[in-house]
This record gives sequence, structure tokens and C-alpha cells, in this order.
Amino acid sequence: MPHAVKRAVVLLSGGLDSATCLWWAKSRGYVPTALSVRYGQRHAKELGSARRLARRAGAALHEAALGLPWLKTSSLVDRKKVLPELPLSKIGVGGVPSTYVPGRNTMFVALGLSLADAIGAEAVVVGANALDYSGYPDCRPAFYAAFGKVARLGTARGASGRRLAVLAPLVKLDKAAIVRLARRLKVPLELTWSCYAGGRRPCGRCDSCKLRAKGFAVAGAPDPAL
Amino acid sequence: MPHAVKRAVVLLSGGLDSATCLWWAKSRGYVPTALSVRYGQRHAKELGSARRLARRAGAALHEAALGLPWLKTSSLVDRKKVLPELPLSKIGVGGVPSTYVPGRNTMFVALGLSLADAIGAEAVVVGANALDYSGYPDCRPAFYAAFGKVARLGTARGASGRRLAVLAPLVKLDKAAIVRLARRLKVPLELTWSCYAGGRRPCGRCDSCKLRAKGFAVAGAPDPAL
Repeated sequence: MPHAVKRAVVLLSGGLDSATCLWWAKSRGYVPTALSVRYGQRHAKELGSARRLARRAGAALHEAALGLPWLKTSSLVDRKKVLPELPLSKIGVGGVPSTYVPGRNTMFVALGLSLADAIGAEAVVVGANALDYSGYPDCRPAFYAAFGKVARLGTARGASGRRLAVLAPLVKLDKAAIVRLARRLKVPLELTWSCYAGGRRPCGRCDSCKLRAKGFAVAGAPDPAL
Repeated sequence: MPHAVKRAVVLLSGGLDSATCLWWAKSRGYVPTALSVRYGQRHAKELGSARRLARRAGAALHEAALGLPWLKTSSLVDRKKVLPELPLSKIGVGGVPSTYVPGRNTMFVALGLSLADAIGAEAVVVGANALDYSGYPDCRPAFYAAFGKVARLGTARGASGRRLAVLAPLVKLDKAAIVRLARRLKVPLELTWSCYAGGRRPCGRCDSCKLRAKGFAVAGAPDPAL
């Protein structure tokens, strides 16, 4: 009897973490379907990275578009706002930063569950991590555990007793561990884009660039995207 | 000292249930902000109803737009699909019907939490009910209880210890009880639209029309939208 296909929806922003999740899903035997989301982010660079990564991984890519006017409260959406440039030691410790997009991961996981329910996937994989992160509330393990219950109760698939899990495989890893995992999984890191600004090259000054640089430095590896 | 303003986001489809929630929120002392969602539904009639209801309630209305191509699996989105026309006794008992939009309430509550987090609302109110419903998994009490935990953990507001609840005040009411509640709250029921089809008048044949008609009949009240 042929082995049943295990499908997973992987939320793919185009950054280091979500790309690592895409290859992680493959390594765990899932046939991945990537999901990227336009929500009015400052720049489309990461969406281009998501496309290239999905193609390289041989994964189908769904692009969702959200028109949510109230997200302008975030500096990651409103181009008129200034992106924070904190020293590394201050990132993630001073409360929720201006780059926080209200309820973003809640919405993204919900979209992932919708897609999973539509295509018969048994997992939604999200690249959140709670160690080297910017201080967002929706990056913590308990949040994903709670969403697992929502998935089981609120989808046709889950309600019928079939598996539909919310997986955050990086949630307890620091950036260096993610870089090491990505290298072991042969993620094409040169295709990833983490910078909050949308310049030709990563800015090196935003929270995301600094956390990424620290990850590569601690892992003792060069960043092939630089 | 002036009483603090209590804000609530009310998911407003324009139907009987969500309109009742809008007036319920007002009766409980909330300043309501309505949220309606375009997700490619067959017709825009209910969105027009949502606008008129929000205006009548004196509530701000946010209109979200979702571009989610995979929702075409639902007969409520794909106009080429035929809407089911079951006898009343079969509605909600034969498993998930073709009108099910994968993960719809999961996505809508997530959008509501995002808006609540952005405007400082302490509740998201949703008109789901688990008695006279079409058999959707995302209309049951346990689902909303689980989402309450997601709200507390996954939003800036909840994570900072302020209240952010997911309320489903109709979840244990049948349609007749909802009609009675709506009449007591003086909901302008003539403005509501429940029909899945988008004709000039409600079709009277779809699941939603049949459940609504039963509710008014059992409550012994005429339906002012007919």
C-alpha cells in the first residue's frame, strides 16, 4: 500500500526563519504548500524572496492579499513611520516595538488553517521564535499551543477527528541555532530577505538585520545574502 | 472621574445574528466598532446591510478585504457551485455543507483581534450560534473558549495583562431566542440580510433563509425583511 501523502502549509515570509521551516517540513516528510501574505508591508522584497524560495523547494505557493486599513499603526506598514534602530542589547526587552503588526501571527496562522482545511493539510508550520525576537507577543510557545486547540475545534478537518496541528519548530531556538539548522538542511540562504527596510541591500541597522547578523556571527558562518 | 470607555469590535456580516450582536454590545455598555469582511462571497448584499446597520447603530465600520484564492472550494464563494437547498430537518446534521468557507470564523476572529489590538478594544463579539446553524465546526462554544486563550497570549493588549475577550453571546441560543433578543434590543431587523443567494429578495430556499424563517415562526413574529 502506498504511503499516504502528508501535506503541510508553511507560512513563508521570505526570511531566514520561514525558509528554514520550509526545508524543515520537507525533511520531516511533508509535501509543503507555501503561503505568503501581502498585508501592506513597506516593501515587496520579501515576497519576491518567498517566490524564489518556494520555487527552489518545489513547493506550491499561495499568495494571500489582505486589505486591513487599521494596520497603519505599525511602522512595518506605514512608510511614513521611522523604523526603530535599537542596539542589539535593547531588542526585545523594552515592550512591544513599533514594528508590531497588531495580531499578525494570529491572522497568519488563521489563514494557514483555512488553506490547510481547503487542501487537506495536516499541519500549519510557522517560523516564530521566542528567543531572538523583537518582543512580539505572538512569538511565544504558549500562543501556538493555544492555537492548536483552535485548529482542532474550528476547522472541518480538525472537527472530523483528522490531524491538523500548528507547528512552530523554531520557537525555542535562538538565531544561531536556526542558522545551524538552516545550513544542515541546505536552505538556500542567499535567497532569503530579513531586512525590515526595502533597499537594494539589507540595511544592517534594523532589529531584524541585527538579530540575523548575530545569528550568523554566533554560528560562525558567513551570511550568503550579504 | 469619568467612566472609562469600553470598546468592542463586533463582526458584522449584515445578517440577523451579527446585527443582534451589535445591539447587544451597545446594551452591555460597549462602544462598538463594526468589522465587515469581503472575502469573495457570491454577492455584496450583506455588505450593504452591514453598512446600513453600522450607520443606524452609530458605530464606526471597518471593511476588510481578503484575497484568498483557495476559498473557491466553498459554494458560498464560487458562483458556479449550486447552493444546497435542504429540508429544515436535514440542515446541520449531515456533516459540513458545501457552503462552509474553510476556517472562516477562525480568520474573522483573528481579524477582529487585530483590529481590537489596534484600537484598544477589550472584546471581539461574534454572532456564531451552535443550535440552529448549518453544521459548521467553527460555531461551537469550545472553539470560542479556545480562541480566548489565543487572544490573551497573542496580542499586545492581552500580553500586557489588559482584557481582550472573545465573546459569542448567541452561541447557546436557538434562532427563535435570537429573534426575541433582537426584538427586545430594537434591532432594525428590516435592514438585515441572511440569504446565501444574492437576489432582490431573500430566496426562501437556502439553509440560511430556512433557519431564519423557523426562528421568526417559533418566536411568533413577522420577519420585517420579507
